[in-house]
Amino acid sequence: MADKYVYDFSEGNKDMRELLGGKGANLAEMTRIGLPVPPGFTITTEVCNYYSANGAYPEGVDALIETALQQLEKNTGKSFGDPDDPLLVSVRSGARASMPGMMDTVLNLGLNDTTIQGVIKSTSNPRFAYDCYRRFVSMYGDVVLGCKPENKDDPDPFEERLDQMKKRRGVAVDTELTADDLKELVAEFKQAVRDSVGKTFPEDPREQLKGAITAVFGSWMNDRAIAYRKMYSIPDTWGTAVNVQTMVYGNTGDESGTGVAFTRNPANGENVFYGEFLVNAQGEDVVSGVRTPRQVIELKDVFPECYQQLLDVRQTLEREMRDMQDFEFTIERGRLYMLQTRNGKRTGLAAIRIAVDMVDEGLISTDEALMRIEPDQLNQLLRPVFSATDRDQAVKDGKVLARGLPAGPGAAAGRVVFSAADAVAWAERGEQVLLVRDFTSPEDIRGMDAAQGILTAQGGMTSHAALVARQMGKVCIVGCSELDIDMQARTFAVDGTVVKEGDWVSIDGFTGEVLLGQIATRPPEVLQVLLEGSMKPADSESYGYYSKIMGWADEQRKLLVRTNADQPDQAANAIAFGAQGIGLCRTEHMFFGGDRIIAMREMILAGNQEEREKALAKLLPIQRGDFAGIFRVMKDLPVTIRTLDPPLHEFLPHDAEGQKEVADQLGISADAVAAAVDDLHENNPMLGLRGCRLGILYPEITKMQARAILEAACDVKAEGVNVHPEIMIPLVGTRKELADQVDSVRAVAAEVFAERGMSVAYMVGTMIEIPRAALTADKIAGVAEFFSFGTNDLTQMTYGISRDDAGKFLPLYLKKKIWPADPFATLDQEGVGQLVDIGVRKGRETRADLKVGICGEHGGDAETVKFCHRVGMNYVSCSPFRLPVARLAAAQAAIEERGELELEK
Amino acid sequence: MADKYVYDFSEGNKDMRELLGGKGANLAEMTRIGLPVPPGFTITTEVCNYYSANGAYPEGVDALIETALQQLEKNTGKSFGDPDDPLLVSVRSGARASMPGMMDTVLNLGLNDTTIQGVIKSTSNPRFAYDCYRRFVSMYGDVVLGCKPENKDDPDPFEERLDQMKKRRGVAVDTELTADDLKELVAEFKQAVRDSVGKTFPEDPREQLKGAITAVFGSWMNDRAIAYRKMYSIPDTWGTAVNVQTMVYGNTGDESGTGVAFTRNPANGENVFYGEFLVNAQGEDVVSGVRTPRQVIELKDVFPECYQQLLDVRQTLEREMRDMQDFEFTIERGRLYMLQTRNGKRTGLAAIRIAVDMVDEGLISTDEALMRIEPDQLNQLLRPVFSATDRDQAVKDGKVLARGLPAGPGAAAGRVVFSAADAVAWAERGEQVLLVRDFTSPEDIRGMDAAQGILTAQGGMTSHAALVARQMGKVCIVGCSELDIDMQARTFAVDGTVVKEGDWVSIDGFTGEVLLGQIATRPPEVLQVLLEGSMKPADSESYGYYSKIMGWADEQRKLLVRTNADQPDQAANAIAFGAQGIGLCRTEHMFFGGDRIIAMREMILAGNQEEREKALAKLLPIQRGDFAGIFRVMKDLPVTIRTLDPPLHEFLPHDAEGQKEVADQLGISADAVAAAVDDLHENNPMLGLRGCRLGILYPEITKMQARAILEAACDVKAEGVNVHPEIMIPLVGTRKELADQVDSVRAVAAEVFAERGMSVAYMVGTMIEIPRAALTADKIAGVAEFFSFGTNDLTQMTYGISRDDAGKFLPLYLKKKIWPADPFATLDQEGVGQLVDIGVRKGRETRADLKVGICGEHGGDAETVKFCHRVGMNYVSCSPFRLPVARLAAAQAAIEERGELELEK
Repeated sequence: MADKYVYDFSEGNKDMRELLGGKGANLAEMTRIGLPVPPGFTITTEVCNYYSANGAYPEGVDALIETALQQLEKNTGKSFGDPDDPLLVSVRSGARASMPGMMDTVLNLGLNDTTIQGVIKSTSNPRFAYDCYRRFVSMYGDVVLGCKPENKDDPDPFEERLDQMKKRRGVAVDTELTADDLKELVAEFKQAVRDSVGKTFPEDPREQLKGAITAVFGSWMNDRAIAYRKMYSIPDTWGTAVNVQTMVYGNTGDESGTGVAFTRNPANGENVFYGEFLVNAQGEDVVSGVRTPRQVIELKDVFPECYQQLLDVRQTLEREMRDMQDFEFTIERGRLYMLQTRNGKRTGLAAIRIAVDMVDEGLISTDEALMRIEPDQLNQLLRPVFSATDRDQAVKDGKVLARGLPAGPGAAAGRVVFSAADAVAWAERGEQVLLVRDFTSPEDIRGMDAAQGILTAQGGMTSHAALVARQMGKVCIVGCSELDIDMQARTFAVDGTVVKEGDWVSIDGFTGEVLLGQIATRPPEVLQVLLEGSMKPADSESYGYYSKIMGWADEQRKLLVRTNADQPDQAANAIAFGAQGIGLCRTEHMFFGGDRIIAMREMILAGNQEEREKALAKLLPIQRGDFAGIFRVMKDLPVTIRTLDPPLHEFLPHDAEGQKEVADQLGISADAVAAAVDDLHENNPMLGLRGCRLGILYPEITKMQARAILEAACDVKAEGVNVHPEIMIPLVGTRKELADQVDSVRAVAAEVFAERGMSVAYMVGTMIEIPRAALTADKIAGVAEFFSFGTNDLTQMTYGISRDDAGKFLPLYLKKKIWPADPFATLDQEGVGQLVDIGVRKGRETRADLKVGICGEHGGDAETVKFCHRVGMNYVSCSPFRLPVARLAAAQAAIEERGELELEK
Repeated sequence: MADKYVYDFSEGNKDMRELLGGKGANLAEMTRIGLPVPPGFTITTEVCNYYSANGAYPEGVDALIETALQQLEKNTGKSFGDPDDPLLVSVRSGARASMPGMMDTVLNLGLNDTTIQGVIKSTSNPRFAYDCYRRFVSMYGDVVLGCKPENKDDPDPFEERLDQMKKRRGVAVDTELTADDLKELVAEFKQAVRDSVGKTFPEDPREQLKGAITAVFGSWMNDRAIAYRKMYSIPDTWGTAVNVQTMVYGNTGDESGTGVAFTRNPANGENVFYGEFLVNAQGEDVVSGVRTPRQVIELKDVFPECYQQLLDVRQTLEREMRDMQDFEFTIERGRLYMLQTRNGKRTGLAAIRIAVDMVDEGLISTDEALMRIEPDQLNQLLRPVFSATDRDQAVKDGKVLARGLPAGPGAAAGRVVFSAADAVAWAERGEQVLLVRDFTSPEDIRGMDAAQGILTAQGGMTSHAALVARQMGKVCIVGCSELDIDMQARTFAVDGTVVKEGDWVSIDGFTGEVLLGQIATRPPEVLQVLLEGSMKPADSESYGYYSKIMGWADEQRKLLVRTNADQPDQAANAIAFGAQGIGLCRTEHMFFGGDRIIAMREMILAGNQEEREKALAKLLPIQRGDFAGIFRVMKDLPVTIRTLDPPLHEFLPHDAEGQKEVADQLGISADAVAAAVDDLHENNPMLGLRGCRLGILYPEITKMQARAILEAACDVKAEGVNVHPEIMIPLVGTRKELADQVDSVRAVAAEVFAERGMSVAYMVGTMIEIPRAALTADKIAGVAEFFSFGTNDLTQMTYGISRDDAGKFLPLYLKKKIWPADPFATLDQEGVGQLVDIGVRKGRETRADLKVGICGEHGGDAETVKFCHRVGMNYVSCSPFRLPVARLAAAQAAIEERGELELEK
């Protein structure tokens, strides 16, 4: 007795996708729940795997197929080769995962010169019959017999003959050919097969079937299928099933039709029946766009009974499949048949709405709902968007100018300016501006804040522009290398099109598209509720969905979420988005603007420690004020403040004009400023004098910052807030580096607490952002009370790439799939992730209760958040606008860990 | 019954250093072998540890000391407190490792107002007696009673009183004071003790002894001893022993004397008795330099019997201690006493000569000899050196100008030039030149080759200048930051001293010293034999030593040694130094000089693939010729050739003048050249578009190089050489990057072999120089036939430091001991080493026979070589002149692994 290799549709169910493939399992399920599925059977993926390995079928499969075929003949009351009313079947592949268009299909199998007569007889439609026949011969000739053009640029042998026939008959389209024309074509097609591959076209339906099954199984290992699987990481060992199903026809005349429908609106998720159909048509006609299909609601008038039946099908399918379905149906001479169903693709908005609605309808659990939403889809609730009509019109009008990397989602339009100063000036006089730069630097912050959006020609997804834009919630496109910026002329050009200062340009931070002109935007409702308060929660549908999902997510997740924020207003935003603390407060951004930068430059240009301390004394009250502001907003939540990190040259202007200005401000010579800039120059600043190296070289900087933090903490604690400062030392590579800085901080703390006659609980810890720090985390944890993984720099050093320069080869690397993804956008778990894992484990070996988080930009990437959960971190920290994504991803990670749900993607 | 805490000298031996300390164990050993050691006993290190932990002695120690003391009285026939002939002792520390000057000593203990009379009586020398007494009181007052100046800048209370006495008496030196003066001083000293610490000076010798022992044990935990141990990684838990020994005096008159001697010459290793002595003197007089000591040979005339006895001692000591000894002796009234012996410090030359001679004499095994030589000491046989007299004179004349990092050992003098072109031009007209630059780049290679030595103001031990200099065997000092170079004026200044172009300057690559003027150098004999052939092996003593050591080392070592060489002449040198292959042939250096650089620049400036291929076609025959030259020299040995690594901008001039020149050569506009340079600019070139990233972006470069290598291999194989090319792809971070390049190489190989109708066995492998590559070595080994660890870049990325920039903080880091060593000079085994270990292990998990080596500059560092042995590498590769060091270190690693020898450092 052979194994069970063949399943009648009545024998399977939807949980058998591994064995029956997605299509086969769902056909079986529909059969099981009583939907009108044309009878058929499925040959399992095991047969495919056996065939791939051995080039032959397992013993007994032929007999099992024959048995299934006989059962099919019985079920349909038709039989193979019957000259009066022959059984015709389709033979289709059906893998576990959808691989659209990758494998082969044969339709109308069972036709030959004898059975064609039966079709003519039973349909009274010779033209229809011969049209089926010629399609079958060409499809079978191509797929099974390998009758293809010799060179890929040559015309298809069947297409060529069809074209010649049309020419001979003087007609333009296939449908104008008569039954006789098509009959003649069938003969010509068979001759073409003989000429091309030297074989006679098989007349025996059983021989046809065997050939088709083998061809479909064989197509699993064809080049394009292998390439596709490689691209989407589908294992070769999954194999495909083969479905043999009775043909039904929607093109027999006006009493027939075919359609594609969704159980809900896949665009916005609304719970309405949604779809399209055509009378007297085949499935491909609906999707090909040759004829304009009609809305499915109109079926009510054309096929009222079938319409009622479909409404039932819609309910039944959702109840049984427990997800929104995308299904195909055919009406053959007034009778409805279901040909396929699968989970429907949907927009982010629809995914959210459907998931929430289905919970409300009692169809799925909240856990299932959480698992069904791609965390990034939440962004669609959180960003301004272009008005769809206006955007479509712009595209139609050829306004798409260029495309860059979509670094800050949303849509923005503004008048082009080329400097931060201009952005500020123009915005002050009420203009909407778009800041266009080669790249941005900390000096540009105020200009970026003033702009609607930022567009840069250089830089990647974690360049300065991208980082700051996301933190600010600004729309941003970076690395748009087509832009040729002429700073002198205040213009940029793309392929000959020149855009001048003041021209309107719109950028789409979802797609990376840059468009000419002003496209209208609208703010998302969630923001109007959460931040502006300009809308009441109850008035906003999308806010309702958002708040439900976040509520469910917060119940599930174990990871805490913190935010990266430097200013009280950012911190306030973050709290609105659910932040449970600040994971990264960069102090360097506080040194720009007004007098601050002057004092900072005075400090940098100081000739000795005394002068440096004098300048630092000016910065102390400013920093103290900044920190106090943040502590007040964050109240009892922890605030991690990083000591000065960037190389000092970033605070000095690099152009002569700017240097002159600084010289005048500080009363020194421009040459002295230039000399200092020169002195600070580094060949590889990323690997240079920055982070704790600065604090070790100039202990007074760390001391001033520690004092500012702890004095502010005392001030705010005195106001009754339970402050939790966490002082974080950056760029530590060895235990001694950290120990040096920790000593400085603790010494200052003792002084401050003595002076104030009070103390605050504070922690001192470190960034783990240098590979060596992760490798020696056991040693570093001896002096660190917490770790925060700085995965931006860790990625740069582990990969040996600079985020400012990677644009030179990153696009090619992604195109050639040398890297599966931009490692700055999603954490490279295979490589960098190993160091994170090592760092967490070794750190906790030394200090079991070590608090561990992540504060790189990856903290807002869903896959990375899940990774952080798995390696046992305490929290992730990300920019305010990424918090919802992080919260949902953290919930998904917790649910996945419980493993209670085995959900398909 | 208490443990054994006290050992009479007659009870111990030299193997008991852990318990008795070095001094105590060796005193016991000398006693054991019958040498005349003044009797005494040792209190063990265990007592010290107990005391450090508990602040008190273990139970019963007092009684054990009393017993030992009584035994001592018995042995000497003297007793504590005897008014006629009292027992006087010294109390000295003696740790396992020598800690010179770190701990306390008390001499002449046992003197008081009663016993002094006995000393006067037995010596008939009251002045001598009171001199001993006043020394004892001041020493004891200081060390045991803590009578010190209140502020460290105040005069010592005893010194102060001594000075006042000398003033009162109107004398200049101590020796002019009379017995009465000294007696008065003793009383004043005691008063000083009372005034300062409020204690009466103890008169009871037993009380004195107890105090002294406790003080010496206590000094183990004094600040400077702790700091010293920290610096030299001596564990606190080792503790010190205390030695109580009968005093003997070399200063009782002309029948006494004292001396320090070596069993061989510690400067050059010659097997002669070597040392100095003084008549009527104490030990400190010999070393203080106040009196000029006499050569030990003269003892023959002064104390002929003692001299004969010392010759015997010398033989006995070497036979028993099995190493060259440095010992102290005292002759008291014609009788010889041995006070101490230890392994003598020696120069590198002496270490080599002594080790080899002792093998020849049958004293030690060849393994022991190999372990006794610091591998770096071999350099002293291999480098030109300054004439010692000339150098000393220059130092005396204040010619030392500055000090930098000694990057290329040896000594060189030359006339200062400031550009590579000048170096070439001046050398061509017969001048010896010294190339002085801020830093060097590949463009400077020919100038460096033309210079006697290289001196740079910037860069560290693995900067370009340092790397190339070592490979060339050039004397080199880098990072000499005191240099202020004025390129315009063609001068450099140090602290106001200005050196002009053409001035003579000498640099010492052993010490990093820069000296004004021309100091004469002489070439080492080993080089004259090995490379020049200008000397016969038998004529050179130092070559004899070198070749013996290398022979023994080669018998022991398991690691193969290869060299880093780009040119046939370097390869020839390397073979002379024992290279067993080339581990790193950098191809980029081949692109400089003459027409090569023109074709290279044409390639870089090519606008498209076609133009690029045209330019590459010009480079192909040049590269093929280069490779063939190397294959011919290396014969059957493997040659690892790295494909193009550096960023392309390194091949273009960055100044307008140079760009104009290139533009003219290539017939394009200077603006186009400038634009290309601008386009190639990177913020962090170290992490930019280089290595395999170039080969992936421009596959035609890798293909041209693979073709050049394999065509050359065919050419040379056709000449009858069994070539072994190994093609190495640099900067790989992921498996797919390497797979891409391996595919290119294999495709070209198939073409070349088909064209030639022959094939050569070749391998394709990769550098492991990116942390991610080490972490994913299991995956990369799937496509790599060998790994070569590029530890320069691996260090840069693992530490997050740039070797070109680290100079800004490295000196401070080393000074503050934040880093134990320059990680570019010796591999950071704790951090970077983990990645190397992971890389080797994971690589071999996938490919058990994976060939693994190292080709970073660390390959020539002895500690790193040993590490490479331990992690199981197959070979190390280093610059030709480091090969002897690597060979010896590899032998030591193999011997250490066998663990048969437990040798003290």
